[in-house]
Amino acid sequence: MDSNTLISVASIVTAGLTISIGSIAPALGEGRALAQALSAIAQQPDEANTITRTLFVGLAMVESTAIYCFVVSMILLFANPFLSS
Amino acid sequence: MDSNTLISVASIVTAGLTISIGSIAPALGEGRALAQALSAIAQQPDEANTITRTLFVGLAMVESTAIYCFVVSMILLFANPFLSS
Amino acid sequence: MDSNTLISVASIVTAGLTISIGSIAPALGEGRALAQALSAIAQQPDEANTITRTLFVGLAMVESTAIYCFVVSMILLFANPFLSS
Amino acid sequence: MDSNTLISVASIVTAGLTISIGSIAPALGEGRALAQALSAIAQQPDEANTITRTLFVGLAMVESTAIYCFVVSMILLFANPFLSS
Amino acid sequence: MDSNTLISVASIVTAGLTISIGSIAPALGEGRALAQALSAIAQQPDEANTITRTLFVGLAMVESTAIYCFVVSMILLFANPFLSS
Amino acid sequence: MDSNTLISVASIVTAGLTISIGSIAPALGEGRALAQALSAIAQQPDEANTITRTLFVGLAMVESTAIYCFVVSMILLFANPFLSS
Amino acid sequence: MDSNTLISVASIVTAGLTISIGSIAPALGEGRALAQALSAIAQQPDEANTITRTLFVGLAMVESTAIYCFVVSMILLFANPFLSS
Amino acid sequence: MDSNTLISVASIVTAGLTISIGSIAPALGEGRALAQALSAIAQQPDEANTITRTLFVGLAMVESTAIYCFVVSMILLFANPFLSS
Amino acid sequence: MDSNTLISVASIVTAGLTISIGSIAPALGEGRALAQALSAIAQQPDEANTITRTLFVGLAMVESTAIYCFVVSMILLFANPFLSS
Amino acid sequence: MDSNTLISVASIVTAGLTISIGSIAPALGEGRALAQALSAIAQQPDEANTITRTLFVGLAMVESTAIYCFVVSMILLFANPFLSS
Amino acid sequence: MDSNTLISVASIVTAGLTISIGSIAPALGEGRALAQALSAIAQQPDEANTITRTLFVGLAMVESTAIYCFVVSMILLFANPFLSS
Amino acid sequence: MDSNTLISVASIVTAGLTISIGSIAPALGEGRALAQALSAIAQQPDEANTITRTLFVGLAMVESTAIYCFVVSMILLFANPFLSS
Amino acid sequence: MDSNTLISVASIVTAGLTISIGSIAPALGEGRALAQALSAIAQQPDEANTITRTLFVGLAMVESTAIYCFVVSMILLFANPFLSS
Amino acid sequence: MDSNTLISVASIVTAGLTISIGSIAPALGEGRALAQALSAIAQQPDEANTITRTLFVGLAMVESTAIYCFVVSMILLFANPFLSS
Repeated sequence: MDSNTLISVASIVTAGLTISIGSIAPALGEGRALAQALSAIAQQPDEANTITRTLFVGLAMVESTAIYCFVVSMILLFANPFLSS
Repeated sequence: MDSNTLISVASIVTAGLTISIGSIAPALGEGRALAQALSAIAQQPDEANTITRTLFVGLAMVESTAIYCFVVSMILLFANPFLSS
Repeated sequence: MDSNTLISVASIVTAGLTISIGSIAPALGEGRALAQALSAIAQQPDEANTITRTLFVGLAMVESTAIYCFVVSMILLFANPFLSS
Repeated sequence: MDSNTLISVASIVTAGLTISIGSIAPALGEGRALAQALSAIAQQPDEANTITRTLFVGLAMVESTAIYCFVVSMILLFANPFLSS
Repeated sequence: MDSNTLISVASIVTAGLTISIGSIAPALGEGRALAQALSAIAQQPDEANTITRTLFVGLAMVESTAIYCFVVSMILLFANPFLSS
Repeated sequence: MDSNTLISVASIVTAGLTISIGSIAPALGEGRALAQALSAIAQQPDEANTITRTLFVGLAMVESTAIYCFVVSMILLFANPFLSS
Repeated sequence: MDSNTLISVASIVTAGLTISIGSIAPALGEGRALAQALSAIAQQPDEANTITRTLFVGLAMVESTAIYCFVVSMILLFANPFLSS
Repeated sequence: MDSNTLISVASIVTAGLTISIGSIAPALGEGRALAQALSAIAQQPDEANTITRTLFVGLAMVESTAIYCFVVSMILLFANPFLSS
Repeated sequence: MDSNTLISVASIVTAGLTISIGSIAPALGEGRALAQALSAIAQQPDEANTITRTLFVGLAMVESTAIYCFVVSMILLFANPFLSS
Repeated sequence: MDSNTLISVASIVTAGLTISIGSIAPALGEGRALAQALSAIAQQPDEANTITRTLFVGLAMVESTAIYCFVVSMILLFANPFLSS
Repeated sequence: MDSNTLISVASIVTAGLTISIGSIAPALGEGRALAQALSAIAQQPDEANTITRTLFVGLAMVESTAIYCFVVSMILLFANPFLSS
Repeated sequence: MDSNTLISVASIVTAGLTISIGSIAPALGEGRALAQALSAIAQQPDEANTITRTLFVGLAMVESTAIYCFVVSMILLFANPFLSS
Repeated sequence: MDSNTLISVASIVTAGLTISIGSIAPALGEGRALAQALSAIAQQPDEANTITRTLFVGLAMVESTAIYCFVVSMILLFANPFLSS
Repeated sequence: MDSNTLISVASIVTAGLTISIGSIAPALGEGRALAQALSAIAQQPDEANTITRTLFVGLAMVESTAIYCFVVSMILLFANPFLSS
């Protein structure tokens, strides 16, 4: 088992775990915020615009942590700095 | 056990775990948002359109984290960059 | 233990775990949404049609994450790309 | 330990785990929806028909994720594609 | 350790785990639905018939996931397809 | 270590785990239903008969999942189909 | 390490785990039912007799799952069917 | 390492774990019932006698599961049936 | 590593774990009952005597499960029946 | 690695784990009782004396389980009965 | 397996775990704060500006812990101080 | 690896784990009591003195369990009784 | 595998775990405090200044525990005292 | 692998785990107290001074458990008593 194989295996497993574990919390957090937004709209329909705007800006911020994980995952798969070519 | 076999095994296990773990949180989050949406419609039927529209845009955003996992899973199965052909 | 046997074993175990783990969250999420829908109908019977329609469109979206897992599971069992024939 | 034995053992263990893990969430989800349905009937007896109908259609949808697991489990036991005959 | 012994051990352990893990969720779900049914009867005694009927049809549906596990467990013990006679 | 010893050890461990794990959920579910029944009687004493009858029929249904586990456990101890005599 | 020693060790460990794990849920379930019974008596003192009677019949049913575990545990210690004398 | 040593070690570890794990649930259940009893007395001081009597009979029943574990633990330490003298 | 050393090590580890795990639940249960007692006194100061008396009798009963663990722990440390002197 | 070294290592690890695990529950239980005491004083300032007195007697009882663990821990460190001098 | 390979593998696995574990809590915390912000806007629309401003300053502070993890992850991948070039 | 090295390693790991695990519960318990104290002051400002005094005496009692762990940790690091000098 | 390599690997893994585990609780705690602050502003807009000021001082205190972890992580990566240069 | 290397590795891993695990509970506890403080200020603005003062004294007490862990962590890194120089 040469060196590149070992690094490849570690990269594959890590890439998969990174994006799968890293998508747990953003999805839960976004689902919670989305649920609260719908409840807020039902409670105060006149403020639907403000609520929706705040919601989507906030969702983008929560999504950013998932993006960090996706970036690391893609780096490991396609631009692995440790892999000697 | 040659190098390709080891990478194949790691890819198979990782692909399965990535999509299965990665689908936990989106499904829970979407279920929560969906439940709240139904509650909001029952509470404020006149705003059903606004609520439904916000719901589906939000669900798409939550779904995106599941898509990240599905993409990584498909890459590992069908376009594995580490597999020497 | 030749290479194909090892890949077969990994595929079998992964296929089973993928669909079983991947069906946890959708079932919980759908159960939650369904429970809320029944509660909403009891609370606002006149909106039963809107609620039911939104429910089933939403359930299909939640179900989609289970389908991703089922697809990966079937690919591993019947169209395994790593198995040399 | 020949190749078929190893695949057999993996299939047995996976088949059992798939159906047992895969039946956790549907049973919990269905129990929750059923409990809510009974509560809704007690609250709004006049809508018992609508509630019951929505309940059973929804239960069938939740049950579907258990069926996926049962199908994979049966395939592994009786139509194992990796087992050389 | 011949091949049949290994398959026997795997079948024994799997059969036990399948039915024991598989009976967790149905028992919890049925307990929850049953508790809610009693509460609903106390709240709306006049609908006791509708509630009881819906309860037992629903319990049968929840029980079905336990039955799947019991079936797989019995197959492994008494009709094991992998055991060479 | 001959073959029968190994099967015996696996049977002993599995029999114990099956009944102990399998008795967790029924006991919790029955406790919950029983607690709710007492609360329902206190709330609606006139319906004590209906409540008690529904309770015991339901408890029997929940108990059935514990019985499945007990049956498998006894089969493993006293009628083990894999044990060559 | 002869065969009887191994079976003895497995029996000892299994007997202890079976009764200790198997006593978790009944104790919790009985505690819950007992707590609810006391609350029900405080709420409806006139029905103390009905409540107490239902409580003790129900407790006996919950206790039965602990008894199953105790029986298996005693069988393993004093009437072990696998132990050659 | 002769046979008696191995059985001794297994007995020591099992005896300790049995009583420690087995005392978790009874203590929690009794604490819960006791807390509810105090709350019930504060709510209905006139029924303090009935409540206290039901409490102690119930506590004895919950305690019984701890006693089962203590009995098994003492048997393993002082009357070990597997230990050749 | 002679036989006595192995039994000593097992006794030390088991003694520590037994009392530490065994003290978790009594402390939690007693804390809960104590908290409820204080709340009950604040709610019904005239019954402080009855509440306090019931509290301390009950605490002694909960404490008994911790005592079982302490007894086993002390037996293992100072009166170990398996240790050849 | 002689016998005393092994016993020393086991004693060190066990002593640390015993007091650290054993201090979890008392601290949580005491925190809970203390919080409830403060709430009770705010609700019924006239009974501050009774509440405080009951609180500290109760805290001492909860603390006793932590003391058991501390005693075992000190015995293992400074009066180890298994250590040949 | 030379020294650089081992450090590479450790860096890959650690980088992935760091960002994936480190993104769990910020995403949950931000989702919670965002949900509360939407609820606060619906409750007090006139203070939407103050609420939104406080929200985004606070989110940046929560995000900072995710940034710490991202920084460490990037250092390990692209500026590894332990890797001899 | 001589005997002192092994004892040193065990002491280091144990010392760290003891204080880190041992500080979990006191911090949580103190946080809970502190939160309740602030709530009590807001509810009954006139009793701020009694509440604060009871709070700090109680916090000291909760802190004592953390001190036990700190003492054991320091003993292991600086006054290790097992380390031959 | 020389000594420096082993220390390097341990430092890399520890640095990553330290900051990732250490950022869980601060992010959760800050998110909770932030959410409560927004709720408090919506409830008492006139005190927005006091609330915001207390919030940010408190957040800095919570953040300090994350800083401790970041400091240890940076020390391990860039100023490792155990690494012989 | 000489003795100092092993102690170094153990110290590195322990130092990191100590501060990371040890910072979980203080951060959660402080976040909870801080959140309650903000709620108390919104509820009783006139007592803001008393609340803030009690809050910061209490936070310092909670922080002390994190300091214990930080101290042990720094001792292990920079003043390791077991490391022969």
